[in-house]
Amino acid sequence: MIDSIKNARIKNISALMKKSRLRKETGFFIAEGPRMVFETPETLLHEIYVSESFASDDRWISFSHGLGMPSDSDVQGEISAFHVSDQVMRSISDTVTPQGVLAVVRQPAYEPKDLLGTEVPYLLVLERLQDPGNMGTIMRTAEGAGVTGVLMSADCVDVFSPKVVRATMGSLYRVPFFIADDLIAQVADYRRAGVRFYATHPAGTESYYDMDYSTATGFMIGNEGRGLSDELSKAADERITIPMEGRLESLNAAMATGILLYEGYRQRKKDPSG
Amino acid sequence: MIDSIKNARIKNISALMKKSRLRKETGFFIAEGPRMVFETPETLLHEIYVSESFASDDRWISFSHGLGMPSDSDVQGEISAFHVSDQVMRSISDTVTPQGVLAVVRQPAYEPKDLLGTEVPYLLVLERLQDPGNMGTIMRTAEGAGVTGVLMSADCVDVFSPKVVRATMGSLYRVPFFIADDLIAQVADYRRAGVRFYATHPAGTESYYDMDYSTATGFMIGNEGRGLSDELSKAADERITIPMEGRLESLNAAMATGILLYEGYRQRKKDPSG
Repeated sequence: MIDSIKNARIKNISALMKKSRLRKETGFFIAEGPRMVFETPETLLHEIYVSESFASDDRWISFSHGLGMPSDSDVQGEISAFHVSDQVMRSISDTVTPQGVLAVVRQPAYEPKDLLGTEVPYLLVLERLQDPGNMGTIMRTAEGAGVTGVLMSADCVDVFSPKVVRATMGSLYRVPFFIADDLIAQVADYRRAGVRFYATHPAGTESYYDMDYSTATGFMIGNEGRGLSDELSKAADERITIPMEGRLESLNAAMATGILLYEGYRQRKKDPSG
Repeated sequence: MIDSIKNARIKNISALMKKSRLRKETGFFIAEGPRMVFETPETLLHEIYVSESFASDDRWISFSHGLGMPSDSDVQGEISAFHVSDQVMRSISDTVTPQGVLAVVRQPAYEPKDLLGTEVPYLLVLERLQDPGNMGTIMRTAEGAGVTGVLMSADCVDVFSPKVVRATMGSLYRVPFFIADDLIAQVADYRRAGVRFYATHPAGTESYYDMDYSTATGFMIGNEGRGLSDELSKAADERITIPMEGRLESLNAAMATGILLYEGYRQRKKDPSG
């Protein structure tokens, strides 16, 4: 059992939690808590760390047996499992209440074409999105609305940061995404493949619900404070707006995204001809 | 200038921030930051506290002059203003970065009939909602979607807690709401007034977008983890569900609310005959 926070593996986990750059270099990230760990596809699981207390939890016993592992001892293999003291688990945990188990996970890797899905493409483009909670909620809602893939600018909040990972509630493993160095060029590629893009823009004259999203569609969402860059919104086919009553300046970015995605979903369910 | 955190007024502010019970007893709450303070209707403003640094800020100078107050000294009148040291402001602030100004505000008071608005009622019923961020986002989105009023159970998170107040972004002052001791009885009253209620329910067989919301409508939203109580969902006219693709268990409660409210809004804009 690992009982020192100076252990090299433990130091590596802390570094992977804190440093976006290290996550990029190594291609690993940390999934924390039973929910996220148990939803991790086996092919991506690299190492699992279990606290003393959680080692006797039924959920761990059943999960470890599912992987063909003993629940009560360390295993070194294709997927390694290590037992750590409760104190060590507390010290590395990113949450106020440590959840007893975390994993070092390989980052899922997609190609841009994977985002188009197998039927009618339904894309979401995120530019400079900064809030981890928003990013997580958006991935979760995107799964619900049947989005086939999420394209992100390289300056979005790191989708593999602990807060985002948690907030996705597992959608991170199920919604294909691609981080583009050149977002404009990638959008142009998708347009050539037949996707029509809709940019949310305060100056948009068309209400989002007056558009037809039954064919290949992509929504563009910009930074929480500044919105979409002029450059990207010019790359869209249409500029749309979400009408608001009262004296509201804007909706929350994740909320606006969800409202658009579910209007697209509604139309696609009603008109499967697209 | 107040420069001690032991000052009775300062102690009162701290207590009003922390204690829901004291807010209920006194009928006051705290609005923090320029945005919330400056959006407070004059009739609700009771006392304003300005930090040394913020006293020379253009926003404060213009706001205080608008109220007919000097910006550089204390005022005791119908609306009182007090200057406090930066250190005192830091110590009472609920935010990591104190924003230089806060106010003691009278709680807006509505009657149940105020929630029906002047044209076609559009209600939201919240039962046992617990997350302050969700509550704030919901109030904000409700304003955008043209909701005429929000009915809350008494065991919802306190809408006057600092986190909720902040997250409403001013909607707290613009969307009528009522906290009901007997939610079921109040819903029954509204039904007699012609409002049709739609309960979100995992067992709902109707997709939310297959319903007609052009007449008097109310949506019921339940607790983040447990959903609506059986009792309340039985008091609804219809049970609806938000369909989800993938393997998602649920949407975030605020997101689900926004999706419903904006579908209602879309229908009402398209069909103003309701």
